[in-house]
Amino acid sequence: MTHAHQRLLQGDLQDQRLGRYTSDLGVTHTRTVTLPGIRTQSGYSFSQITLAYQTLGTLSPAQDNVVLVCHALSGDAHVAGLNPETGRPGWWDYHVGPGKAIDTSRFFVLSTNVLGGCGGSTGPSSVDPQTGRPYAMTFPPVTIRDMVAAQVRLLDHLRISKVFAVVGGSMGGMQALVWAVDYPHRVQTCIPIATCLAHTPMQIAFHEVGRQAIITDAQWNQGHYTAHRRPEHGLAVARMVGHVTYLSEFAMKTKFGRQLQREAKPEDLFPEFFAVESYLQYQGESFVKRFDPNSYLYITKALDRFDLLEGSPPHAALGRVKARFLVISFESDWLYPPAQARELVRTLKRANAVVTYLNLQTSYGHDSFLIQNPEFSRAVGHFLDAEYRRQRLPLKKTTQILGGTR
Amino acid sequence: MTHAHQRLLQGDLQDQRLGRYTSDLGVTHTRTVTLPGIRTQSGYSFSQITLAYQTLGTLSPAQDNVVLVCHALSGDAHVAGLNPETGRPGWWDYHVGPGKAIDTSRFFVLSTNVLGGCGGSTGPSSVDPQTGRPYAMTFPPVTIRDMVAAQVRLLDHLRISKVFAVVGGSMGGMQALVWAVDYPHRVQTCIPIATCLAHTPMQIAFHEVGRQAIITDAQWNQGHYTAHRRPEHGLAVARMVGHVTYLSEFAMKTKFGRQLQREAKPEDLFPEFFAVESYLQYQGESFVKRFDPNSYLYITKALDRFDLLEGSPPHAALGRVKARFLVISFESDWLYPPAQARELVRTLKRANAVVTYLNLQTSYGHDSFLIQNPEFSRAVGHFLDAEYRRQRLPLKKTTQILGGTR
Repeated sequence: MTHAHQRLLQGDLQDQRLGRYTSDLGVTHTRTVTLPGIRTQSGYSFSQITLAYQTLGTLSPAQDNVVLVCHALSGDAHVAGLNPETGRPGWWDYHVGPGKAIDTSRFFVLSTNVLGGCGGSTGPSSVDPQTGRPYAMTFPPVTIRDMVAAQVRLLDHLRISKVFAVVGGSMGGMQALVWAVDYPHRVQTCIPIATCLAHTPMQIAFHEVGRQAIITDAQWNQGHYTAHRRPEHGLAVARMVGHVTYLSEFAMKTKFGRQLQREAKPEDLFPEFFAVESYLQYQGESFVKRFDPNSYLYITKALDRFDLLEGSPPHAALGRVKARFLVISFESDWLYPPAQARELVRTLKRANAVVTYLNLQTSYGHDSFLIQNPEFSRAVGHFLDAEYRRQRLPLKKTTQILGGTR
Repeated sequence: MTHAHQRLLQGDLQDQRLGRYTSDLGVTHTRTVTLPGIRTQSGYSFSQITLAYQTLGTLSPAQDNVVLVCHALSGDAHVAGLNPETGRPGWWDYHVGPGKAIDTSRFFVLSTNVLGGCGGSTGPSSVDPQTGRPYAMTFPPVTIRDMVAAQVRLLDHLRISKVFAVVGGSMGGMQALVWAVDYPHRVQTCIPIATCLAHTPMQIAFHEVGRQAIITDAQWNQGHYTAHRRPEHGLAVARMVGHVTYLSEFAMKTKFGRQLQREAKPEDLFPEFFAVESYLQYQGESFVKRFDPNSYLYITKALDRFDLLEGSPPHAALGRVKARFLVISFESDWLYPPAQARELVRTLKRANAVVTYLNLQTSYGHDSFLIQNPEFSRAVGHFLDAEYRRQRLPLKKTTQILGGTR
């Protein structure tokens, strides 16, 4: 490993505290890198692409400890540690760090912002090198497979030939599945969480509501909005729809019930202003500050298109898969319900994959994979631990070691 | 009964066919009537109110055959028969008509458009007699109790002292419940369908998304839009959110699956245009032609406020109830799930009400009460039949007759 290569892979550990938030990882950074382009599934050829990425922990000399973490719809490359710009911890700080489920003192964690995103990677808000202007709606449609193809470019750049584990929830889980299917020789284990084999019409429908809210916002302007006149109302409404689907009935009852947010003010439309309304409005308003409306259109459409098998029978589509799977769902997740996880498990098993399936009895809906959750942490941690020990041992000893977790 | 009174109560039976639609009732009409005002729960006094209403069938000399049918969020007074303006059957034509569940050859069916609505009754789009201009957002907030109070004015005007049955689904069910609670001596039986005791934070949340879509539409203009510049995009998005919640996962899979609507056109945002997207867009577009955006705000807020007990213990709130209930829910209704119906039943029983509860195994979600459904028809028909015979018999014989349906 050259010095430059080492520097490229080094996690950035600094202060553990920034403003009011702390992280065991302290402040961490994301980098961007320009990579050779890809040809998308739709046939568009990028001459080059930029990806934002984060690394945490240290790559082992054998390069056998890479954990690729893939983000969901609104996530970014900043998976854990404090973000120096926002002062807030990464979106999976609960589960990624020293001694955590994805243990950065043992694993080399890699995370990218997806192609089509707005967190530093090439997306509709990026400048098209051919025109010198933002792509906007001339950006080609991207798919989950395209997002993964872009990540492959990054791994090649980092000279990482193989990942020990690819992990992700929701859209991150779809990427994890595509990794296992499209790059079978590069993936040892795969942990798809709160995800599915293919988006259902109901999942498409909720996204279509959000897209319509954005494109019918007068400020969307066919995608050619400026920084000062963005379709923020539409994007906020889209985010609000999303948020309702991410929470469970139980979580909403516990958090808000029928509580009123405050006494009515003269400017209020109606005398009763429920706490849940205030929460949704806040979620919408804060989201528009950090997300690009066109990216929302492209990424939701990538999710809606997602169909792992793409029309092939399971054995044909998944026959080459070598990864060992831990599939996780949450009982209260009604957006990606356990029934979808069971369908995924059945399909993987039909293609002779080795699959462990865990349906956790959490009460917080689809968001369950994003919040503090010791049972979830233990499950992921034990699986990674057992599999990591397994890959380092001769085959005959594995049964005994894995007995406890399978 | 005077001749004028008779004319007031007469159903309008004409041709059974209009354009491509037919109805056993033929063309039916709605009337409007101006009534003495009410004082709303919020303290606003209407000097007078207008209600649109429809009557079907003939009032019996004993006035013991009145069935009041209450509509849901987007319904109107035109419950059954062909609407001469649209040529389409009323929203409950499947269940209301000669020989149907609510048998117009036997019952005198009465239906009104709610206060706050836009189907002919006083609502935000009506002209405020005090200013000569539309109320818009100066319209007072209305509640389900206010809607029922307005209906009481109509019944008084029609000199109907008592209803044999009050029936409704969703918001109509809430009105039915309020009738039984607030006017115990005027209600014999009550059939609340696919409804609840109080709106939950999740139900409020979905409505708030719709309201935000409307009020952030640039054309909403604080409610002062004109007929040519209405917030149609916002209203369409609101309707789309609603529609997703009215359908079940199963219905969506059966109806649309992941089918594409058609080959992509150059003007399409994305190459894949799913059938479910097309369906939602159509639903949004057709809704805006017939519904007033401000009414949508007021009516959804009335639903969100709904809490039958309003903080009182069940026995205090429901102790005076005399009606006998048939509560119906649908297994696949995830917007007003069976658990809410069971809570309603438990609460009614705790107040010593006589309640029959039926959870039907239909697969079409919340919309199940609006579609053709023989099991549902039979349940409502048998209950009304048994109760109608019961009220005409001496008390000692009722047990035997009701044995089959309870």
